[in-house]
Amino acid sequence: MELKDDERLDHILGEGLKIIQSPSVFAFSLDAVLLARFVSVPVQKGKILDMCSGNGIIPLFLTTRTKAEIIGIEIQPKLYDMGIRSIQYNQLEAQIQMFCGDIKKISANFSHGSFDVVTCNPPYFAIRSKEEINQNPHFAIARHELKCTLEDVVGSGAFVLKEGGKFALVHRPERLIEIILLMKKYKIEPKRMQLVYPKLNREANMLLIEGIKSGKSEIKILPPFYVYEESGNYTEEMRKILRV
Amino acid sequence: MELKDDERLDHILGEGLKIIQSPSVFAFSLDAVLLARFVSVPVQKGKILDMCSGNGIIPLFLTTRTKAEIIGIEIQPKLYDMGIRSIQYNQLEAQIQMFCGDIKKISANFSHGSFDVVTCNPPYFAIRSKEEINQNPHFAIARHELKCTLEDVVGSGAFVLKEGGKFALVHRPERLIEIILLMKKYKIEPKRMQLVYPKLNREANMLLIEGIKSGKSEIKILPPFYVYEESGNYTEEMRKILRV
Repeated sequence: MELKDDERLDHILGEGLKIIQSPSVFAFSLDAVLLARFVSVPVQKGKILDMCSGNGIIPLFLTTRTKAEIIGIEIQPKLYDMGIRSIQYNQLEAQIQMFCGDIKKISANFSHGSFDVVTCNPPYFAIRSKEEINQNPHFAIARHELKCTLEDVVGSGAFVLKEGGKFALVHRPERLIEIILLMKKYKIEPKRMQLVYPKLNREANMLLIEGIKSGKSEIKILPPFYVYEESGNYTEEMRKILRV
Repeated sequence: MELKDDERLDHILGEGLKIIQSPSVFAFSLDAVLLARFVSVPVQKGKILDMCSGNGIIPLFLTTRTKAEIIGIEIQPKLYDMGIRSIQYNQLEAQIQMFCGDIKKISANFSHGSFDVVTCNPPYFAIRSKEEINQNPHFAIARHELKCTLEDVVGSGAFVLKEGGKFALVHRPERLIEIILLMKKYKIEPKRMQLVYPKLNREANMLLIEGIKSGKSEIKILPPFYVYEESGNYTEEMRKILRV
């Protein structure tokens, strides 16, 4: 397998898997890893779609939890290409397919009601947000809603999901209200939520939420997830996920 | 001060305040105490309305945090009467008034936009819920939406609140989605939320949420609040609130 330009091959999950990353495009983050651990997946079979898939971190991680068929969709060719090569390197071509495309045009490529699970780690910042837009277009597209909005994500996810299928999202807690309103608008009933706190006595800085298409109204709020100990080291639950 | 029937005088806040309770009507709960600690209040002046006030626990507790004028409204005469006598016993008549009435008829008794803060620890269970309705009517009214629904609570609160005024609620986490939809419907923007967990590694069993009338969209999720240590004793943060 070929590494291009400034790319490097990073371990994820201890020695379990490797992934191609590059400092000049958006590297995978904790957010993606926590979503891949949080989402409810069928163990033996089914179809999973990961939208805004980047270099394929969520599909790669999910192969450790499910035998379902996984498709990643990513709009940036450079990231898509890194994903393809990571899948080949890990010999996971039989389980994961990457698709370079725009989730706003999902209906041109995927059928209505055809997936059991949809995951997404979308851009977090609305264009109007205070956060300055990065000059590097790869970072800008990954962080800001330049190519797709939260509504595009929820709407496209709802379109491809079966009735009773699961939609799981990682996002910033400050956008919780918008997320809930959009999920309701597209008939995805929020059912499970977990807040991620950087450490004890801090405000939440990440939100994991899962809904069921046409599900009944009643949400569970899971125990808080802490990333760091007071010492600055990863917590035990975090180390368990990363296998470090 | 007279104690009637099976009433007793309980300490709250260490030796600070006393409150009349009775085993045959609904006693105050942790939920009310946590709401009284959570809500943002003006320190020196303003007007606070506590709806579904029961025996007046939230108004009594709030006197330790604010000099604002506090009005409690309670539909059950027996609880209202206990509240009145507790206020007298604690010599807080100058700061707290109790009002026996129905929040569904709030506009007959209180002006539109006349309060800075509204608090409410409402009945938690919809009539259609699985929880069996208690034979004791005092308990039934306090726990089930027999006399007022969640929508009555949010609608009436929104009616009496000033623009920019704060609405704070304690409820069950499973009803979070309904709460958010109703707050949005009545133009109360959710701004602060805290989940209460019985102990580490358990699901949340209580939700504290505060919104601002006509506020801007962006919510903060405060650090989790734990009630018990692994040992079964109150946590330090809980003991601090109860002053025990």
